[in-house]
Amino acid sequence: MEFRVAKDTFTKALQKIQGIVEKRNTMPILSNTLIEAHNDTLYITATDLEVGMKSSYPVNVIKEGKITVSAKKIYEIIKELSDEEIVFSTKENDWVEIHCGKAHFNIVGLSPDEFPYFPKINDNSFITLNNQILSEMIEKTSYAICNDETKFNLNGIFIKATTENERNVLRMVATDGHRLSVTEKELSGNISNELNKGVIFPKKGIFELKKMTEEEIGDIMLGFMDNSAVIKKGNTVIVMRLIDGEFPDYTKVIPTNNDKIIKILRESLLHSLRRMAILSSEKFKGIKLDVRNGSVEISSSNPELGDAREELEVDYQGEPLSVRFNARYLIDVLTILKEDEVELNLRDELSPIIMKPAAKNDFMSVIMPMRL
Amino acid sequence: MEFRVAKDTFTKALQKIQGIVEKRNTMPILSNTLIEAHNDTLYITATDLEVGMKSSYPVNVIKEGKITVSAKKIYEIIKELSDEEIVFSTKENDWVEIHCGKAHFNIVGLSPDEFPYFPKINDNSFITLNNQILSEMIEKTSYAICNDETKFNLNGIFIKATTENERNVLRMVATDGHRLSVTEKELSGNISNELNKGVIFPKKGIFELKKMTEEEIGDIMLGFMDNSAVIKKGNTVIVMRLIDGEFPDYTKVIPTNNDKIIKILRESLLHSLRRMAILSSEKFKGIKLDVRNGSVEISSSNPELGDAREELEVDYQGEPLSVRFNARYLIDVLTILKEDEVELNLRDELSPIIMKPAAKNDFMSVIMPMRL
Repeated sequence: MEFRVAKDTFTKALQKIQGIVEKRNTMPILSNTLIEAHNDTLYITATDLEVGMKSSYPVNVIKEGKITVSAKKIYEIIKELSDEEIVFSTKENDWVEIHCGKAHFNIVGLSPDEFPYFPKINDNSFITLNNQILSEMIEKTSYAICNDETKFNLNGIFIKATTENERNVLRMVATDGHRLSVTEKELSGNISNELNKGVIFPKKGIFELKKMTEEEIGDIMLGFMDNSAVIKKGNTVIVMRLIDGEFPDYTKVIPTNNDKIIKILRESLLHSLRRMAILSSEKFKGIKLDVRNGSVEISSSNPELGDAREELEVDYQGEPLSVRFNARYLIDVLTILKEDEVELNLRDELSPIIMKPAAKNDFMSVIMPMRL
Repeated sequence: MEFRVAKDTFTKALQKIQGIVEKRNTMPILSNTLIEAHNDTLYITATDLEVGMKSSYPVNVIKEGKITVSAKKIYEIIKELSDEEIVFSTKENDWVEIHCGKAHFNIVGLSPDEFPYFPKINDNSFITLNNQILSEMIEKTSYAICNDETKFNLNGIFIKATTENERNVLRMVATDGHRLSVTEKELSGNISNELNKGVIFPKKGIFELKKMTEEEIGDIMLGFMDNSAVIKKGNTVIVMRLIDGEFPDYTKVIPTNNDKIIKILRESLLHSLRRMAILSSEKFKGIKLDVRNGSVEISSSNPELGDAREELEVDYQGEPLSVRFNARYLIDVLTILKEDEVELNLRDELSPIIMKPAAKNDFMSVIMPMRL
């Protein structure tokens, strides 16, 4: 194999797959990237067997072929090269030779035959998703993904299409057992069976998808095959194995009779919570909300440091209520929202709170209280 | 005690001492800052018994007094407050009360009587140092400070005034045993006995001094008292205990007969070394220089990864020579220099190299070779 490529192209291509490559070094071949050159196209592939990515770039191919090399080392080398043309070629016994200006590298590779099979993608039955909308939906749910690997069915985002008021809606849900985040957006086009049934995208795949939405403008195509989601954008394909488990019935967790509605300025609440959280203990981050006529008092205390309180004016008339939360969970929600005003829906000190934008219904977060 | 202060002033004042405060929590009082208010001035003091800092700020003092509180926590609180006036007061039993807008904090403090004594500074016998020059001199030596705490006499920068060619010169030297860095600048004014004899500033004090030079323009005043250096700038005083040990005779380490002189473009050498260092082993970072007529070849190899080489054209006519170095040490020197051209002075494969700017004599680094 031999090809010639601009430093910039090769660097970006190799940067793109750095997040995919297996870090734990369980199988040496998974820390390598597959580099293929044919039809004047360079193909760069990486996989950890759960999430795989393949991209293509136009290059000057002198001799077709393929090889695998350490994804991390080849990236380190290429990005340090001067801005001259890079000549990349293979030699006997899976060695790779790189020339650029007066620099020469001989790198040991591994046979491409050992590299896992990357599925062939057929082009039917994809739906088109707007880059920006997908990015927002992921941002509004991914913070609530469970990091406890023993709860494998919560280690991702549940994605499901439903029909509401004759509109097709795509819904994303994530929960870690302490808090739940749901967001939805209208969807156009035909809905596949998989989306109608609901699928769980793994956390790592979600983060790669998020990066993809942020890289450049353009629509994202989503399809399914063999228990995997297939995502295409431009010349890049991501294939991620869906989490094979049941997502819990999250609708049961969403309280329906939270009758104490408090509208409050998002920024004021966010800053107040940040201040009060300083005096909550490192471990539990517990703060107390005391809801009264016309005000919410936020307070915290810590036996080693002292105590703090702050009153915010709100438009609330009704029974008083005291309830305790992990400040971190409230802050996370307020941080991802952009609206000026948010709504807190409460019932009593043992019931979960609903947080949502005051004027919209496309997002809600449900947060369990802490015991008083 | 009670005073009123703008958020911005108080935040900057507290930020300034964060680097001084003892992190290891051996004595609780050392993680506190001493806050004093009298004569419409706020004094903020921190110390770890080795390096201390005291700054003053004009504020509205309602009632004079003093207290100590956790430097980290009070800083976290103050910087999260809204932009309104802060009212800071003390209550019984060393409690502190902070009001700002609708936020109230009660913080547990410690008695100011427990806080270490901060020396009274008399204003005689200071020399004046230029901010910019001091900053550069620290940058050109501090990278070589030894981090091995058992070699306590190398854990800082040796600073000495000498007279050369009828000019007063301030010299700074640092070494970790593998490399040595020396820089000097002309000095005006009278030289104190301490500087004539030579003193060792501790690493932590050096970094605080470096920060001070970067904060704002203005000259820096340097004096000595009771085995400490006293540094003043604007309304801030740093007192650092000098390292009580002999700095080794560094002049013996500087080779005097390195007759192979190579002039080379700094940027070219730096980038080439960075490239070659990728294939040197993680642990030793060894690269080889092969000096020939008209060229230097830099090469590296790693049994697990492969090998790399690059040739740089240089203006050298003389005997060939091969010598091996830790690439990191050469890169460190090339990174802190700004000159276009540098000079490598070599002798043989077992002798240290001298690196310096090609056209100047105010800096040199001496680096030990690795065995071939």
